[in-house]
Amino acid sequence: MLKNFKLTIEYDGGRYHGWQRQKNERTIQCEIESALKKMIKQPVSLTGSGRTDAGVHAMGQTANFCCETGLSSEVFFRGLNSLLPSDIVIQACEQVSDSFHARFDAISKTYRYRIFNRMTPTAVGRQYAWFIRQPLDADAMRGAMAHIIGTYDFKAFEGVGSPRAHTIRQVMTATLFTEDQDVMVFEIEANGFLRFMVRNIVGALVDVGKQRITPDDFLQIRNSRDRNLCSATAPPHGLFLVRVTY
Amino acid sequence: MLKNFKLTIEYDGGRYHGWQRQKNERTIQCEIESALKKMIKQPVSLTGSGRTDAGVHAMGQTANFCCETGLSSEVFFRGLNSLLPSDIVIQACEQVSDSFHARFDAISKTYRYRIFNRMTPTAVGRQYAWFIRQPLDADAMRGAMAHIIGTYDFKAFEGVGSPRAHTIRQVMTATLFTEDQDVMVFEIEANGFLRFMVRNIVGALVDVGKQRITPDDFLQIRNSRDRNLCSATAPPHGLFLVRVTY
Repeated sequence: MLKNFKLTIEYDGGRYHGWQRQKNERTIQCEIESALKKMIKQPVSLTGSGRTDAGVHAMGQTANFCCETGLSSEVFFRGLNSLLPSDIVIQACEQVSDSFHARFDAISKTYRYRIFNRMTPTAVGRQYAWFIRQPLDADAMRGAMAHIIGTYDFKAFEGVGSPRAHTIRQVMTATLFTEDQDVMVFEIEANGFLRFMVRNIVGALVDVGKQRITPDDFLQIRNSRDRNLCSATAPPHGLFLVRVTY
Repeated sequence: MLKNFKLTIEYDGGRYHGWQRQKNERTIQCEIESALKKMIKQPVSLTGSGRTDAGVHAMGQTANFCCETGLSSEVFFRGLNSLLPSDIVIQACEQVSDSFHARFDAISKTYRYRIFNRMTPTAVGRQYAWFIRQPLDADAMRGAMAHIIGTYDFKAFEGVGSPRAHTIRQVMTATLFTEDQDVMVFEIEANGFLRFMVRNIVGALVDVGKQRITPDDFLQIRNSRDRNLCSATAPPHGLFLVRVTY
């Protein structure tokens, strides 16, 4: 019987070259496909909600796979978790309708980006946040963030060399809150993201926080559609794919 | 001029064989002594507040070192942090009186132990907590914890093969709180700790939480002074030396 299963996946991206299957590179997709192959004795192709780049983490990446099998979702859930390395964990496995597609059916995705903003770096948890020593002006950053909420052409924030057919995306929410005093957390929900979009937005917001540019300059960058005007890309280890909504 | 400096040190113990200098093993003390030697061009001996075992972390370990130097505490602070690996960070460096001794002058130490108590493991942060799937009875655990507050002979909780002259210690506070719903955090402050004392106490508390033993049984273990009655030692990666008070 042909069945379609949806996985919800948490991973620590530190050791991986991102989500997407690649020749001779360790990727999340490869690890899960290998584990699936061990369970059902034939190759399976996993469809992710989208790629995450090398070093990026996920609390709730989603994917689906179809196969002819007598196994239940519960058996896949336990079996995959016993086969996968400790930095990839299946948080849920459920059988879904044949038509479910992890990428096409996604309504929105939510990412978080974490910054340690303090005088000295941290040792514990350094893998999960970007360390910035210079004090950041959170109010100015919030002012700039307001300019990304809505439907805009985000081409200025797209990674070079990865053009999409169209670069208009709708950002539903963009918030900045603090965790444990010195951790700034950005959370952005959109109907889709361009490559490096969150990390480029965060890079520009950090320049606003450092008062190198104003919230108005940030708006000019957004309007310019010109990647060359944008700030440096924030490093991957502060980024988390939190959830995909269907 | 002979100067005495106090360091406050954060470290991720995952890659180390504990605090204490050892031949042919990577330890925190060795790393810091090597960095100091590079700065002042002569061997320096670092006195820690006490050892932490292999794999144990610290937010606020303390240590002191004496040397003839013209360098200031600020220079040591910056210099050490630029020389040390990213999993060891000096959080503070201050010049102290010649008589200050990191071990003998300590009034109390505070440790935390973290447990992820949930159905599925975590990938992100798995290095910093013990994962336990079986639901734990926090009320029973709190009942048992009350039996360690006060001045007692803690010999039953001492690691085998590491006897101290006397095994009486005073525990000032012992609390259990939750973080993010599914993380249990034990915090224990005492005037001193026997080797493996926190991890053995946590091991026994987990048996109380699993209802294998009662809080009364826990009291019997404490009174027995017999390590053989105690539960398994909790793993090191959930343990943090939070602070040393002078």
